[in-house]
Amino acid sequence: MLFQAAELGRKVSRDEFQRLAPDLQTRLLAAQRELRESNAPVIVIVSGVEGAGKGEMVNRLNQWLDARGVRTFAFWDESDEERERPRFWRFWRALPPRGVVGVLFGSWYSSPIIDRAYEKIDEGAFDRLLARIANFERMLTRDGALIVKFWFHLSKKTQARRLRDDAKEGRKTLDVSPLTRKFSKRYDDFAAAAERAILKTDTGECPWYVIEAEDRRYRDLTAGETLLQAIQRHLEQGEAAPEPPAPKNRAPEVPGASVTILEKVDLSQRLDEATYEKELDACQERLYRLAWKAWEARRNAVAVFEGWDAAGKGGAIRRVTRAVDARLYRVIQSAAPTDEERAQHYLWRFWRQLPRAGRLTIYDRSWYGRVLVERVEGFATPAEWMNAYKEINDFEEQLCEHGMAVMKFWLHISQDEQIRRFRERETTPWKAHKITEEDWRNRAQWAEYEAAVNDMVARTSTSHAPWTLVAGEDKRFARVQVLRTFCERLEALL
Amino acid sequence: MLFQAAELGRKVSRDEFQRLAPDLQTRLLAAQRELRESNAPVIVIVSGVEGAGKGEMVNRLNQWLDARGVRTFAFWDESDEERERPRFWRFWRALPPRGVVGVLFGSWYSSPIIDRAYEKIDEGAFDRLLARIANFERMLTRDGALIVKFWFHLSKKTQARRLRDDAKEGRKTLDVSPLTRKFSKRYDDFAAAAERAILKTDTGECPWYVIEAEDRRYRDLTAGETLLQAIQRHLEQGEAAPEPPAPKNRAPEVPGASVTILEKVDLSQRLDEATYEKELDACQERLYRLAWKAWEARRNAVAVFEGWDAAGKGGAIRRVTRAVDARLYRVIQSAAPTDEERAQHYLWRFWRQLPRAGRLTIYDRSWYGRVLVERVEGFATPAEWMNAYKEINDFEEQLCEHGMAVMKFWLHISQDEQIRRFRERETTPWKAHKITEEDWRNRAQWAEYEAAVNDMVARTSTSHAPWTLVAGEDKRFARVQVLRTFCERLEALL
Repeated sequence: MLFQAAELGRKVSRDEFQRLAPDLQTRLLAAQRELRESNAPVIVIVSGVEGAGKGEMVNRLNQWLDARGVRTFAFWDESDEERERPRFWRFWRALPPRGVVGVLFGSWYSSPIIDRAYEKIDEGAFDRLLARIANFERMLTRDGALIVKFWFHLSKKTQARRLRDDAKEGRKTLDVSPLTRKFSKRYDDFAAAAERAILKTDTGECPWYVIEAEDRRYRDLTAGETLLQAIQRHLEQGEAAPEPPAPKNRAPEVPGASVTILEKVDLSQRLDEATYEKELDACQERLYRLAWKAWEARRNAVAVFEGWDAAGKGGAIRRVTRAVDARLYRVIQSAAPTDEERAQHYLWRFWRQLPRAGRLTIYDRSWYGRVLVERVEGFATPAEWMNAYKEINDFEEQLCEHGMAVMKFWLHISQDEQIRRFRERETTPWKAHKITEEDWRNRAQWAEYEAAVNDMVARTSTSHAPWTLVAGEDKRFARVQVLRTFCERLEALL
Repeated sequence: MLFQAAELGRKVSRDEFQRLAPDLQTRLLAAQRELRESNAPVIVIVSGVEGAGKGEMVNRLNQWLDARGVRTFAFWDESDEERERPRFWRFWRALPPRGVVGVLFGSWYSSPIIDRAYEKIDEGAFDRLLARIANFERMLTRDGALIVKFWFHLSKKTQARRLRDDAKEGRKTLDVSPLTRKFSKRYDDFAAAAERAILKTDTGECPWYVIEAEDRRYRDLTAGETLLQAIQRHLEQGEAAPEPPAPKNRAPEVPGASVTILEKVDLSQRLDEATYEKELDACQERLYRLAWKAWEARRNAVAVFEGWDAAGKGGAIRRVTRAVDARLYRVIQSAAPTDEERAQHYLWRFWRQLPRAGRLTIYDRSWYGRVLVERVEGFATPAEWMNAYKEINDFEEQLCEHGMAVMKFWLHISQDEQIRRFRERETTPWKAHKITEEDWRNRAQWAEYEAAVNDMVARTSTSHAPWTLVAGEDKRFARVQVLRTFCERLEALL
């Protein structure tokens, strides 16, 4: 699920690439010169699924950067020398000195992920290795290092196709080594292990960049631009910055290639009145029974509703609550926090509302405010909202470990549809109270919110707590999509 | 081993207590008033071995502080309400709001340590819980909270005696609950679990304070003073300080009660010439055989020598190396780092010198420079050397996990003996080169170094890599002590 933002089919044409690459290289070289005079080592981790072109990427970076300031290490078979010492010895050997870019093909992540995918280690042992890695990276970052972690992603289908094509053409590059074929058989196991590794080590100081690798040109440009911007930000903040370094954690968008997660939502989906009534009835009946079943099984659930203003959150929530016995649910309106709540950590007010066994809490807006409104309005500092992704993932993981269902809905509409609904509210007496100055202000910041939503979904849609992007242009379609997802998630839980 | 600094027998007399307590209370109340206007919640964790008087301590804090700004929570049996939600829900409930001191009797550490001591969970699961705790505390600290973690310690013998005495007098306080007796049977298991918990969560931002609890008055005064200083430092740094808050991580010393780890070293121990010759021969022969045995078993070892100037490090190292085949060992003089080393993290130059299988590396001065000379001379910032304890413990843990022996020697002498040796060096032509300006400068900072050494031993003497404090006043005694320890550690390894 974490990888859904890297399966959007972004592409860069040959012409576009030839136009953009020289400029990117020029800027990279300039940044590298500046870096050399600074006190910061840069560690670039090149990792990802087999067939994603990690070797090509390493070559590309070496082509773009000034070779005198780059050291490339490929972690391959362990030597005797290495085996005779603790595991991290080989990585310490490979660390670049200050002012130098170290490109690591494979890294401290490789063998934990492989061992986990092959079930040579259990989840506990895996988590311990990841905790050690997180400590290691934190220590280097505190010492002034910049660590840029790339995960190059291919969907299962694309990987299979690429391997087939390569085989047909008799290609045998670094990319399609004998290992590739062996690993690709275990795609799902690898994806699960990689997702966990990324979630557990995606910190504000040292974020992961998951990059779509289907199109080679898009991959190279995006990785190059990401690296450039990370170096620039790091240099701006000066040596040994006490603040977490990266205020922006998305891979930057290559012009022309930008397809975002939200843009992939098909807003043309509709339901006619008759189908809607039929589906609504069926779903609500199903949900009614499931809610009681959950109560009997003592399994609790939380549902989060986020979305654009006027996207229909309230209507969707009402369709859910009408189907559930009133004793079993609570709806929490997350308006401005109370005094008491403001005197606590931002997650406190959501923890306190967690449901008891067998009940459901619906959050109308939620902890995601931290990475949406607080980010856009500047109520949270970049360091704060950057750290929030991991804090939120940790929080939701605790809920899931307890056996709860965590459902998250983003209600999506187009800008045109929003203005239509705003106008309608203004002119309909019993709806006029629903439109405020604030709604217009938020609308003016559509682009900033859009970026925040895309980041949010990319960084917090985990396999245990995935986001459901609801096509909200048609209210009927949206409501049925919400109800159906609700039922499916509860059924899966029980 | 971590607890050796809390078994020194420190005491405060009744008169002394009555003289000091009112003043401490006054200052605590003043700090509390200032705290109330600040934005910082304070979380005081009261934990420790059974019988150490945690309940008394909680009562004392409540007596000293203004009750309006204190909330006390005792984590006792879980309620239904709590069981039905994720484990941390009960702790979130108990968090104090900003400006308030929350005193937690028991905490998020209690059940992991108990479960581990009773072997209900394995080490992997234990480490995962500890990693979660570390994340939780980091999150609160980032949000502006001050977390003061106390571990009240009693030696096994003292605990047994106290329980016996209490039973004799028919006392049944909070301290000697039915649980106490049950837990005390497993003293060693509890100590091991607690040591691991402390090591894994003793960070620069959120350090542990291990306090000797044998004498109730010493315990209360020390904890009160520690809390006071922690609050004062936190307030000075202002709200939401990005820098780790605590530059000083020792529990402060109560005047009159100060016995330090170093002061407990019996410097009067001596060996006469004849005994020395005999012992030296025997130890060296034993070591010669053990070194070859280690080689055959492919087990490597590192030994660290630290100590006062002129304490006899060089002489002791030579007695070791003369006994070991030259192919099997290397001595690394950790003088000022080279250019290449300076361009790396401070641990890098020690990692690179780790021995291959079956070999021994002796470090004449070591990574401990970070928390000794770099701390005292101000080459490392407080945040840097505070974080170094955990970094060093993590490093040594990796060595031990790999199966290496990690031996650490502190060569101790008195100030008088040092000056005697300095004079001798100055007047003996073939020794004159060994005494420099720097030695005199270091000597002038004896007290600062002493504090640094005491902290170092208290925070890094772990059960897998304990410090050996060598009584160096008599060189003969010291050399035999070093050689014998060397042999014992290698024998234990093989």
